[in-house]
Amino acid sequence: MPIADADVTARLTELGLELPPPPPALAAYVPCVVHEGTAWVAGQIPMIDGEVVSPGLVGAGVEPEDAAAAAARAALQALSVLRGTLGSFDAVARIVQVTVYVAAADGFTAHPLVANGASELLVDVLGDDGRHARAAVGVGSLPLGSCVEVAVTAAVRG
Amino acid sequence: MPIADADVTARLTELGLELPPPPPALAAYVPCVVHEGTAWVAGQIPMIDGEVVSPGLVGAGVEPEDAAAAAARAALQALSVLRGTLGSFDAVARIVQVTVYVAAADGFTAHPLVANGASELLVDVLGDDGRHARAAVGVGSLPLGSCVEVAVTAAVRG
Amino acid sequence: MPIADADVTARLTELGLELPPPPPALAAYVPCVVHEGTAWVAGQIPMIDGEVVSPGLVGAGVEPEDAAAAAARAALQALSVLRGTLGSFDAVARIVQVTVYVAAADGFTAHPLVANGASELLVDVLGDDGRHARAAVGVGSLPLGSCVEVAVTAAVRG
Repeated sequence: MPIADADVTARLTELGLELPPPPPALAAYVPCVVHEGTAWVAGQIPMIDGEVVSPGLVGAGVEPEDAAAAAARAALQALSVLRGTLGSFDAVARIVQVTVYVAAADGFTAHPLVANGASELLVDVLGDDGRHARAAVGVGSLPLGSCVEVAVTAAVRG
Repeated sequence: MPIADADVTARLTELGLELPPPPPALAAYVPCVVHEGTAWVAGQIPMIDGEVVSPGLVGAGVEPEDAAAAAARAALQALSVLRGTLGSFDAVARIVQVTVYVAAADGFTAHPLVANGASELLVDVLGDDGRHARAAVGVGSLPLGSCVEVAVTAAVRG
Repeated sequence: MPIADADVTARLTELGLELPPPPPALAAYVPCVVHEGTAWVAGQIPMIDGEVVSPGLVGAGVEPEDAAAAAARAALQALSVLRGTLGSFDAVARIVQVTVYVAAADGFTAHPLVANGASELLVDVLGDDGRHARAAVGVGSLPLGSCVEVAVTAAVRG
């Protein structure tokens, strides 16, 4: 069954989640590009009320569980961008690819646990159409000191 | 001449390579998503018999040549995932993009040598249709302490 | 209005920019793969006359402004690769996605400033069709000691 905007909206409410307002168009790049069946969402830094969620390095100050929650927030923002750009979740065919960049201390190995925060949110909200191919990697630093950045690619209907 | 499953299988034997069994579907993400002509394979960590191949940092314990061999193993796993998902190499049109993440010590610069392990395996097995655009970058840590992670995107026929 | 080769060429002259010669085909990978409406350009390391531009770590020797200029150079190389592969800018529909890898010191947070070097060049040269979804991340090391690597995906006409 294709993704339906009303179902997704109801599911978000059921999960106690609210889509953050989609970000404004930026100067030199845009939140999302849609071209012939594919939507590329810009890398999301998890923010709440203008503040980065759980900044720092995972494994050196930030707990993996908190980073997973931050990754979930970033994934929620990506959904908000998709809906804002496409006008409705009806236009989303499925999530195809997600890259989760984890700002991690040397020797950190539990990137999958952090990335699951993003992956599980997408599946919780979109069901099977939220399942995606994923890469999770550990980087040394991220914009604004974020502990995680999530880049989402989706297939678009029509 | 398009890629033919029988030819690829013969070529693997000629090279003394065996496709590892494709990984099972995972909880929150999947090994591969196919949508309208493109297949996104999840980032591959090189594994043999349940053990990560050559874990550690390249340039600080892991030799670049060993990391290149690990990258080749990860690329072979990506081929196994593609065949497992599509049912046959006949359905692969070509490899389009590969990102090689190298867990590297500070000051390491020979990422291309490591990444060539993955690139050359794809060309050895698939010929010209294995040639791809590539990005190779040095990261601080990878899942399970792997020295390399390889993410492959392929074009699919039909 | 679609991108026109003559307009882009004139715009480059107006900006005082010259396309570097497109790189030769490499052994195991290629500068660009075009498949059904999408062009994947290999990750670009900024080079001038065979030398890496501003090598080192941003925030530990390399100034963010110099890294932004290096990112702009890498983006210009990506445009050269696109034109060399496609034969003309007429065939470029738009830039869809850009990943900017910044080799950064621990604690660096101004990745967007560096990445803007690439993003602004693409918009300066291609106008609105140069706008793209972007991810900017901080990595520990890059090929040849580069401070930045830029990977570009474009949509192709026809």
